[in-house]
Amino acid sequence: MPARSSEPNTLRIIPLTGIPEVEPGADLAALLRAAAERASVSLADGVLVVCQKIVSKAEGRMVDLASIEPSEEAQRIAREDERDPRHVELVLSESARIVRRGHGVLICETHHGLVCANAGVDLSNSPGPEIAILLPKDCDASAAALRDALCQGEECRLGVVISDTFGRPWREGLVDYAIGSAGLAPIADLRGRPDLSGRELQVTATATVDQLAAAAGILMVKDAAIPAVWIEGLLPEGEGGVREMLRDPATDLFR
Amino acid sequence: MPARSSEPNTLRIIPLTGIPEVEPGADLAALLRAAAERASVSLADGVLVVCQKIVSKAEGRMVDLASIEPSEEAQRIAREDERDPRHVELVLSESARIVRRGHGVLICETHHGLVCANAGVDLSNSPGPEIAILLPKDCDASAAALRDALCQGEECRLGVVISDTFGRPWREGLVDYAIGSAGLAPIADLRGRPDLSGRELQVTATATVDQLAAAAGILMVKDAAIPAVWIEGLLPEGEGGVREMLRDPATDLFR
Repeated sequence: MPARSSEPNTLRIIPLTGIPEVEPGADLAALLRAAAERASVSLADGVLVVCQKIVSKAEGRMVDLASIEPSEEAQRIAREDERDPRHVELVLSESARIVRRGHGVLICETHHGLVCANAGVDLSNSPGPEIAILLPKDCDASAAALRDALCQGEECRLGVVISDTFGRPWREGLVDYAIGSAGLAPIADLRGRPDLSGRELQVTATATVDQLAAAAGILMVKDAAIPAVWIEGLLPEGEGGVREMLRDPATDLFR
Repeated sequence: MPARSSEPNTLRIIPLTGIPEVEPGADLAALLRAAAERASVSLADGVLVVCQKIVSKAEGRMVDLASIEPSEEAQRIAREDERDPRHVELVLSESARIVRRGHGVLICETHHGLVCANAGVDLSNSPGPEIAILLPKDCDASAAALRDALCQGEECRLGVVISDTFGRPWREGLVDYAIGSAGLAPIADLRGRPDLSGRELQVTATATVDQLAAAAGILMVKDAAIPAVWIEGLLPEGEGGVREMLRDPATDLFR
């Protein structure tokens, strides 16, 4: 979990702006360092939250719908749900499993184990109306690579979280989730510590990386051209990736 | 949605500390004003996030387990799950419906329509080992009353969010959610706006109050005696309560 000094800190959530349209092969670390410099921020002793879109774009995870040959299953779903069969085909190919289908929505489990609408295949904020953006192939590896590039071989206390905007059961509205992370423990496990009255806390394991993604999401509303956010006031601690926090299907009541 | 000036703001998330143990009938607004003063913060033009525990305590929503006569159903569940039947009885009485049961966990829909473990009935951070704390009776009304007391009849730009820590499907770890709110729109609806490439955004409605609760949750880890947080750098806009953002059962794929 992020360390706090004995005096609780104020967190500062600082937008990183002015990042140009990210092309495949772009040096994302360099673009982020330049944005941080403009914001007078040094990317150390804090957490960088980067939206999935620019990571995927830099990695070239874009597909022209014109290149897609939809399968029969994709065509059937597209017909029933009045969707573009080529988009549906991409969704199916990015999915390990369809979790729910209804009201024209496909909730999918991706090959990474993330559960989200359309397996994260998205046409918004893409370079063209027919260009779909896919999630990174390995989101934790993308976060780790970005972290390495930012640390430039030096020891550095830097958490990197890649975030995406997901819907949730039971509640309207989208919230930003961590889909990849590096340089900090995804979950802060407080179990076994005493609570205020000395009783042992039973089930308090906070999903730190998701709280950080959501905090960044306050600024990263989709029309604001804020694809990254710097969070300072907490020191990242521990290690691990988002993959570790995905529930074991055997103990998940919602599979 | 919270307004942003044309220059995106830095958000500041400021812990409010030194709040004494809250007794039933306590003047929570006065306690929060005093804490804000100590943090050199004026509670205007921002959002106050307050954890559910101190709201429930001030409202006297506490029950001594010794006073509970468990029903047969509660006794049966308690036997099967090796739990305290009096706690289970309280959970059932606070629930409109059991959403899932398994692995010793009861996921409930509360009478407010919130979906969470144990209908929010919690024994941690309570005044004694046998004292259970219930959610406020009407969380939006509690947020509105607190807001009114803080504004003292003046016009004031103040959002109030009451947060609680919930588990989620598919992911380990808890995240803070809004359970009540006042003085701001719970959801920022961006549908119909153009995205960066001019394409109309289809489904972008951000659950602002949940993002704010999660951001506050970074500081409000359970052992830290930070029961409230002040968020500045965004102006609350709109109105409404959390109840409005609970999904219509008819369109919820997870009911």
